Amino acid sequence: MAPRKQQEIFGATLALLAERGYESLTIEGVAELSGVNKTTIYRWWPSKPALLAAALVEADALAFDPPDTGTLRGDLEALVDNVIALLTDPPSSDIAVAALGAAVHHPELNVRGFFADRFAREREIFERARARGELVHDTDPMLVVDLLAGAVWVRAVFRGAPVEPGFAERAVSAVLDGVTPRS
Amino acid sequence: MAPRKQQEIFGATLALLAERGYESLTIEGVAELSGVNKTTIYRWWPSKPALLAAALVEADALAFDPPDTGTLRGDLEALVDNVIALLTDPPSSDIAVAALGAAVHHPELNVRGFFADRFAREREIFERARARGELVHDTDPMLVVDLLAGAVWVRAVFRGAPVEPGFAERAVSAVLDGVTPRS
Repeated sequence: MAPRKQQEIFGATLALLAERGYESLTIEGVAELSGVNKTTIYRWWPSKPALLAAALVEADALAFDPPDTGTLRGDLEALVDNVIALLTDPPSSDIAVAALGAAVHHPELNVRGFFADRFAREREIFERARARGELVHDTDPMLVVDLLAGAVWVRAVFRGAPVEPGFAERAVSAVLDGVTPRS
Repeated sequence: MAPRKQQEIFGATLALLAERGYESLTIEGVAELSGVNKTTIYRWWPSKPALLAAALVEADALAFDPPDTGTLRGDLEALVDNVIALLTDPPSSDIAVAALGAAVHHPELNVRGFFADRFAREREIFERARARGELVHDTDPMLVVDLLAGAVWVRAVFRGAPVEPGFAERAVSAVLDGVTPRS
């Protein structure tokens, strides 16, 4: 399938998800909005969860390039700002919150692929940091990413609290420098 | 209302939530399961979200006593283990994941009260740590809690990955000690 046509299908999928929610999302609706024949869509993605899982990883709307600022601190701050934007700026926040919320109740909607894909790209941040001597040797990069992304999720979605300016700097400083006095 | 009767209502509310999900939860169903008259329940809690919000904070099944181990490290490790149990051990995990997942799509189900109530209890951990000189002076306790709880949520719910033994120790060490080499 031509990449442009594929992006139209993904765009329609995410727009309908954000607007109507996962339960009301249908491949028929995606066909109608994208102008692509239903059977063509089914040939490529055999089910609604398969289509949505592909859209979450491949849609231009959720494209993710890992930052490369020259320092681990700068990269992680940019990463946290990226997660804040993803979870609080429409339209990406409508898409991301609808998809992640749906995944809690619908195990067939596999968002592991979305997280695995992002983590595969985030890895290079930690490889560069390791080469620069910025990381304690046995640090688990996935733990660092989950601490930071998780804090944004809890603050913005569960507490429904504003993510204040400076949140990224403070969160990254806690994880890089620690919150106990250095003796 | 007698505390015991109240707990029966809360218990029925959370059992039905875990079993059927938020959409299918009804006050009629709670009345039937708890054996308490529907109009009595409505007199105390005027709506389904109000009843569930109260149950999340007050039900014995979700009771939370902040740990007091003598060190900040010990307290936070116990706190993370508590969150791991909440999100991965049935029946509490069925309740917590159903409630938190529903809150994403149903803003009328206010889980802020649940987080605010827990944080009010967690505060004492940080007050004791501050008195013992274990915290950098301008540390934001809510940030520390959100980093740790968020990491468990991302790992267990979004990644659907096992939370390995030692996760609490490693997560707490990252936040207390930092992941950059101490010079």
